[in-house]
Amino acid sequence: MSITIPAPADFHVHLRQGDISELIVPHVRKGGFDLVYVMPNLKPPITSTEQALQYKAELEKIDSNVEYLMTLYLSPEITPEEIRKASAAGIVGVKSYPRGVTTNSDGGIESYETYYPVFAAMEEVGMVLNLHGEVPSDPSSNIHVLNAEVQFIPHLFKIHQAFPRLRIVLEHATTRAAVEAVKKCGPTVGCTITAHHLALIVDDWAGQSWNFCKPVAKYPDDRQALQDVIKEGHPRFFLGSDSAPHPPEAKSTSTPTHACAAGVYTSPILLPFVAHLLESFDALNKLEGFVSTNGRSFYQRPYSSQKVGRDFVTIKKIAPRKVDELYTLGEQKLVPFWAGKEVSWEIEESA
Amino acid sequence: MSITIPAPADFHVHLRQGDISELIVPHVRKGGFDLVYVMPNLKPPITSTEQALQYKAELEKIDSNVEYLMTLYLSPEITPEEIRKASAAGIVGVKSYPRGVTTNSDGGIESYETYYPVFAAMEEVGMVLNLHGEVPSDPSSNIHVLNAEVQFIPHLFKIHQAFPRLRIVLEHATTRAAVEAVKKCGPTVGCTITAHHLALIVDDWAGQSWNFCKPVAKYPDDRQALQDVIKEGHPRFFLGSDSAPHPPEAKSTSTPTHACAAGVYTSPILLPFVAHLLESFDALNKLEGFVSTNGRSFYQRPYSSQKVGRDFVTIKKIAPRKVDELYTLGEQKLVPFWAGKEVSWEIEESA
Repeated sequence: MSITIPAPADFHVHLRQGDISELIVPHVRKGGFDLVYVMPNLKPPITSTEQALQYKAELEKIDSNVEYLMTLYLSPEITPEEIRKASAAGIVGVKSYPRGVTTNSDGGIESYETYYPVFAAMEEVGMVLNLHGEVPSDPSSNIHVLNAEVQFIPHLFKIHQAFPRLRIVLEHATTRAAVEAVKKCGPTVGCTITAHHLALIVDDWAGQSWNFCKPVAKYPDDRQALQDVIKEGHPRFFLGSDSAPHPPEAKSTSTPTHACAAGVYTSPILLPFVAHLLESFDALNKLEGFVSTNGRSFYQRPYSSQKVGRDFVTIKKIAPRKVDELYTLGEQKLVPFWAGKEVSWEIEESA
Repeated sequence: MSITIPAPADFHVHLRQGDISELIVPHVRKGGFDLVYVMPNLKPPITSTEQALQYKAELEKIDSNVEYLMTLYLSPEITPEEIRKASAAGIVGVKSYPRGVTTNSDGGIESYETYYPVFAAMEEVGMVLNLHGEVPSDPSSNIHVLNAEVQFIPHLFKIHQAFPRLRIVLEHATTRAAVEAVKKCGPTVGCTITAHHLALIVDDWAGQSWNFCKPVAKYPDDRQALQDVIKEGHPRFFLGSDSAPHPPEAKSTSTPTHACAAGVYTSPILLPFVAHLLESFDALNKLEGFVSTNGRSFYQRPYSSQKVGRDFVTIKKIAPRKVDELYTLGEQKLVPFWAGKEVSWEIEESA
């Protein structure tokens, strides 16, 4: 059995910078993707058009057969003027991180109203606002990693109401409440779902740091809601892998005073893995929409206008095969999510 | 400032077996305790009077200045006859583990009704039933590590109703719901609270396996409920440390296919640490009840009839001092909970 779909697109990926990018970037195509939406949480964060274009050039130097959609990091440096400049330069979106909730988010924002002039400019020029939809934990208000996303939902509604024509993506939804919230919104609000959140629940990251990511995987009923909205074929929900590589030792080992890194790395196995998961909950017939056409439609990136890469990708069913346990390049090492577990799909290489 | 209290008692501790016990057992007194209630989840589990007495003798050989209250592991081997024999031999309680939820619980029970004849015999002879109050995770029913305790509460009520004179202890409560459930029960139902659950919430074990234990630490509001019931001085709530040592590498390191061990090790720092925590939420005036008299009263073990050890223990306030980061004995190594963090109380050694 094989399935051919219009070129898939990963609408949320971390490609890092420096030497490690040399290992990561080629994994985009290895995983079946020729278009990626690139997160701006570098050190320092990408806050200007120049930085974004320079970063894009670095990525293209590593693999010019992938289309990189670039983003800026929402912060005080971002002005309406910068938005217009960025849009004119082809930068697609602006990512908002709440302060301190994930990797390199120390510069994250605390209040959205401050940015309303920026959002107005984005709405005007057609840029997309990408929301990391969690509020920071606050024990005194009983806010913790399990309800941080649910507590964020009022912010989504408020921004959407204030800027109904602004395209907004709620990134890496993990809860039933978030799925329902996005459904309630108008056609300008989309939602990415990662591969790993279709597989994991809270039990899976209890004591198992390889499954630890932000937002953390939630309860079984939440995972069910993510699976159901894909199975339903809802057009505003699409894949954003949030593939986030960390050195193996940062994933494997904590000390009493230092936790493991949050994030799982799915890029090199992404399309076969997503097919494997969708098959597990009987949604393989929604693969095309979930990994390709829904997101491309929301982002107005039809595969027919793809500048580089494949127009179609074919995957075929295989006997279950173990995922690679390690990728290396010189000193650089990465262990993918699902390492040592089986996947029963592979990408058919073009002749 | 110093505080003198009747000899503290730890009503839930894991002392393990073999070489590692030589390192662990002396930590009981080091932590300020001369009476411990010893869990039976060895390999193989303690399921007979003979095994329990032999285990007790091994512990006494390591440190004879501690009183060890022994328990059996609820399993099909436990009959009403064995209960009478065990009680006559001074064994105090029977511990019930749900199948598969914690260290060495593969032989745990699945249905309580099967054991009603055993419970009837225990009620008759005055033995205590210790409940690990969690149901096994079951994604298809949306049962996971965060609601496993709440889902267990109906079992507590049912057993208590069927055996109102049977003394039952709900072990290591972690939720507001469990605290409220125990309060609703009659005087035969007590509840242990660990030190670490007074300190931790779910955020603390996200990616941080040193803080990973079962039951997992819950939400801030749950921790508040544990602190509040101690502050209230409720007489049926008392300390059971659930101190559970694991080799440092089993705590620090996971592989993609193997999780870290659940459990934290508080024995060697227990009394100063509990004082430190109670002081942090303004409950130092409840220290005596929480670590000594409440539990002793429930277990009918007045300190005046203590067979070995101190009658009173004094702790004194000190400048904040870092907790030891490693204990060793030959090849054996253990890292305590709170390693590298500060505690501002110490035990005053008798002259």
